[in-house]
Amino acid sequence: MRGKDRLRISLKDFEYDEKIAIINKIDADKLEVKSGDKISITNLKNKNIKSIFTVALSNDLINEGEIIIPSSHAEKLGFKNGDIVKIAQTHKPESIELIKKKIAGEKLEKGEIRTIINEIVDGLLGKTEIMGFIMAQKYIGMDMDEIEALTRAMVDTGEKIEFRRPTYDKHSIGGVPGNKVSLLIVPIIASAGLLIPKTSSRAITSPSGTADTMEVLANVNLTLEEFMDVANKVGGALIWGGALNLAPADDIIINAEKTLRLDPIPQMLASIMAKKMAAGIKTMVLDIPVGKETKMENIDDAMNFARLVIELGNRLGIRVQAGITYGEQPVGHNVGPALEAKEALEALINPKDSPASLIEKSCSLAGLLLEMSGKAPIGMGHKLAKDILYSGKAYQKMKEIIEAQGGNPNIKPDEIPVGQYKYEVYAPVDGFITKVSNSSIIQIARAAGAPKEKGAGIILHVKRGRKVTAGQKILEVYAERSVKLQDAVHVLESNPPVIIEGMLLKTVPERTIYTMQSESYSQGSNSE
Amino acid sequence: MRGKDRLRISLKDFEYDEKIAIINKIDADKLEVKSGDKISITNLKNKNIKSIFTVALSNDLINEGEIIIPSSHAEKLGFKNGDIVKIAQTHKPESIELIKKKIAGEKLEKGEIRTIINEIVDGLLGKTEIMGFIMAQKYIGMDMDEIEALTRAMVDTGEKIEFRRPTYDKHSIGGVPGNKVSLLIVPIIASAGLLIPKTSSRAITSPSGTADTMEVLANVNLTLEEFMDVANKVGGALIWGGALNLAPADDIIINAEKTLRLDPIPQMLASIMAKKMAAGIKTMVLDIPVGKETKMENIDDAMNFARLVIELGNRLGIRVQAGITYGEQPVGHNVGPALEAKEALEALINPKDSPASLIEKSCSLAGLLLEMSGKAPIGMGHKLAKDILYSGKAYQKMKEIIEAQGGNPNIKPDEIPVGQYKYEVYAPVDGFITKVSNSSIIQIARAAGAPKEKGAGIILHVKRGRKVTAGQKILEVYAERSVKLQDAVHVLESNPPVIIEGMLLKTVPERTIYTMQSESYSQGSNSE
Repeated sequence: MRGKDRLRISLKDFEYDEKIAIINKIDADKLEVKSGDKISITNLKNKNIKSIFTVALSNDLINEGEIIIPSSHAEKLGFKNGDIVKIAQTHKPESIELIKKKIAGEKLEKGEIRTIINEIVDGLLGKTEIMGFIMAQKYIGMDMDEIEALTRAMVDTGEKIEFRRPTYDKHSIGGVPGNKVSLLIVPIIASAGLLIPKTSSRAITSPSGTADTMEVLANVNLTLEEFMDVANKVGGALIWGGALNLAPADDIIINAEKTLRLDPIPQMLASIMAKKMAAGIKTMVLDIPVGKETKMENIDDAMNFARLVIELGNRLGIRVQAGITYGEQPVGHNVGPALEAKEALEALINPKDSPASLIEKSCSLAGLLLEMSGKAPIGMGHKLAKDILYSGKAYQKMKEIIEAQGGNPNIKPDEIPVGQYKYEVYAPVDGFITKVSNSSIIQIARAAGAPKEKGAGIILHVKRGRKVTAGQKILEVYAERSVKLQDAVHVLESNPPVIIEGMLLKTVPERTIYTMQSESYSQGSNSE
Repeated sequence: MRGKDRLRISLKDFEYDEKIAIINKIDADKLEVKSGDKISITNLKNKNIKSIFTVALSNDLINEGEIIIPSSHAEKLGFKNGDIVKIAQTHKPESIELIKKKIAGEKLEKGEIRTIINEIVDGLLGKTEIMGFIMAQKYIGMDMDEIEALTRAMVDTGEKIEFRRPTYDKHSIGGVPGNKVSLLIVPIIASAGLLIPKTSSRAITSPSGTADTMEVLANVNLTLEEFMDVANKVGGALIWGGALNLAPADDIIINAEKTLRLDPIPQMLASIMAKKMAAGIKTMVLDIPVGKETKMENIDDAMNFARLVIELGNRLGIRVQAGITYGEQPVGHNVGPALEAKEALEALINPKDSPASLIEKSCSLAGLLLEMSGKAPIGMGHKLAKDILYSGKAYQKMKEIIEAQGGNPNIKPDEIPVGQYKYEVYAPVDGFITKVSNSSIIQIARAAGAPKEKGAGIILHVKRGRKVTAGQKILEVYAERSVKLQDAVHVLESNPPVIIEGMLLKTVPERTIYTMQSESYSQGSNSE
């Protein structure tokens, strides 16, 4: 080992939100790096093993001549304990000036957008710079040339999948809690003999993304080979796209924007289509929920978004049909990963006793795909989808998918564990439900711990228009931890999720809008 | 020690950009905290010693029952090795929804702004959330009620100083490189018998803030008591405000926005006035440089900003006079902390041989303060300031200030060390200088390492309108590290800092606009 830029890896268990490597201050001085600088680390035995880390300094935790690399990163990257690595300073990212250009309102060139995405994927940009780029997209916008360039750059910085058969997909722009329809649509489409290899994101703005929900039933962290095997074998799969390194910029961007739940239109378009293009999808239906408190407030916005996504699809060689759906209250009754997985499984097993909103939406969107594929004549897709669901074929297909993805195909809905801390809300008066608030339900479910904590969520016992009587249970909140249930109740008290006509909204004290029947959550008892 | 929420502090040398505490995974499970969560840590012996840290997890670096607190933070906060601390989860910050409200374009109430600032100061918000708030201020804006609330909240979350005598101050909104005028104005005003206890920020957008420049000559990290002692004793001080805990939110916000060099008007106003109000300033002159590539592109913008700051001053009880100054090229010749300190000292010692731009600007702004104080009749302030400077009194006063702040009062300008790596630029043609670009000079100096690396910067041998002959030296770039000099030269090649009439701007290859006479910086030789 020679040269001041050579260090020996000391693998240590160290988990943090950012990719940190720890070096001794003596080495830092020799290398002329400071705490917070980005460094590139190259394995001398195999120069393809190379990655950028942010430097932390310590004389107490690491010896001179050594570098702590967190084991979790090392495992993914291929660094081993004792490996000799070369450390190099990184230069100032070019993207800083490009992002400033966008913030100032200018259009970015194709190559400039590519530079930003390359530097994001290389780990050269921090979360604040990425936030700057996202906020500029929100307020300044991007034209279709920029969005296409953004999408292609995101595709080109990751893996690309090619299937031998035509591929179908369904995607939702999100914004509606409880939207577990993919867990019905994928097995319906696969049952019809079409290939539907669905990759999805984890939740950004909702209490559970399709990947979060499916993860309750099966492994969603498949390798590229495993994913293709499952899809080719059973005709469908439901996995988290993040593990495949498809458009990896997307996950990094989501990580930066997630706390504030931002999702500007250009990034939303690029994010959806880059994942689809990289996954080799050729035909897709896009679910655009519309309504107050969803991402699209009205039909005009939804139509406009639909036109944009169809135009972007055209430019990228992907056939897109958009389904504009009602989004002003949750789909079905359950919200949160475990609760949604449970409801989806119940609907596959016993569709006739399941919520109409879930069954009808799933069959409508599946129907569009069946029509685009030619499996059903125009206008007959919905009926074919429903026939497949009611025949039990979709449930059988789902069991095949669950099994192929390493889950238990025979799991019963009741066997799915949900949070042990529960809080119940009762109707204070007789009356009709005039509003179910998505944003309140999302905030409550997320405060309860969803999607990170699978068992957290909400069961909504009533929907808009339903008549209730005073004292009737209208809602349950579930959490895995007492502190989270308290948070959720705190949110619930100031954001009523359900409004009953005739209910006093502004009594004094304001916090007693509901008759709360707490099941002693503060003592941490198990109320299930 | 009992209770799963009690841990024993293990102080370790650990430097990183964020405030991290490291705990064992077994404790994390018991405490129900995950990597990246914020926790509050309270010393059981003294419950006033309490702070919020972000959690990193490790089984290798820390034993069960212990918690690593970085020594640097512990020192400031008062935590000692072996102290038993109580760990508590923090609840979701309320500010998230408030920042989202601002992002959506709504006005924030006084109390809402206070909540955001409280949570920023408490360490509950991450950099991305703060960036969201800043970007919303940029694109949505804030009205005067919001700005006043922001300013007062920033003042109230920190220390407040009261002087027994009337206090004067000078502040620049920045944007012009080389603006070392405070190092002349403070001693001039103090020489006139007025109290000018100047606190300043470190550079946000420029290659050197007043605090960065002064730090070359003396200690600027004074405690509150030391600062007041110096000011009361010699009548003036030039220190970094960040060490005093005046409006501490400001430094946290600057830390989040610095990479992209953002500084939206509402935050700029609140930042300036909160520091001044907290520092007990009653009368001030504000330097507003105007011109292309400064913060104020034209006189209208500057006038508008001046009106806003005067109105905000009125609301806060601070008399403000604004001086709108020419800002289209650097003040004086030198840019970067050490080079600027050198030039300021030269001007105090020998004003008649110093650049007119530096002397005139300093005396004009000092003159306004002398008039506001009644020391000079209206219209006579500039003359009085110049008399004081030329009499040598200001230099004597500066020596007193340097000495009182622990510096060497007898330091000669030539004794100030500058970067050992140098790159010289020569005029390629005969002609008149038609442009000196601030933004290029800022980018070059920052790429060279300024302000972090004190010796980095630029000496500009020519100014706008000056006639040069081919081969004449027009510019020198200094850096402390070869890699930084390379970065600076890279920036310089694509952003010419000086334009000579008749100079070919678009020759092929584009990179040879200048005749470069590199002093072998890539071999790392000492060219000084």
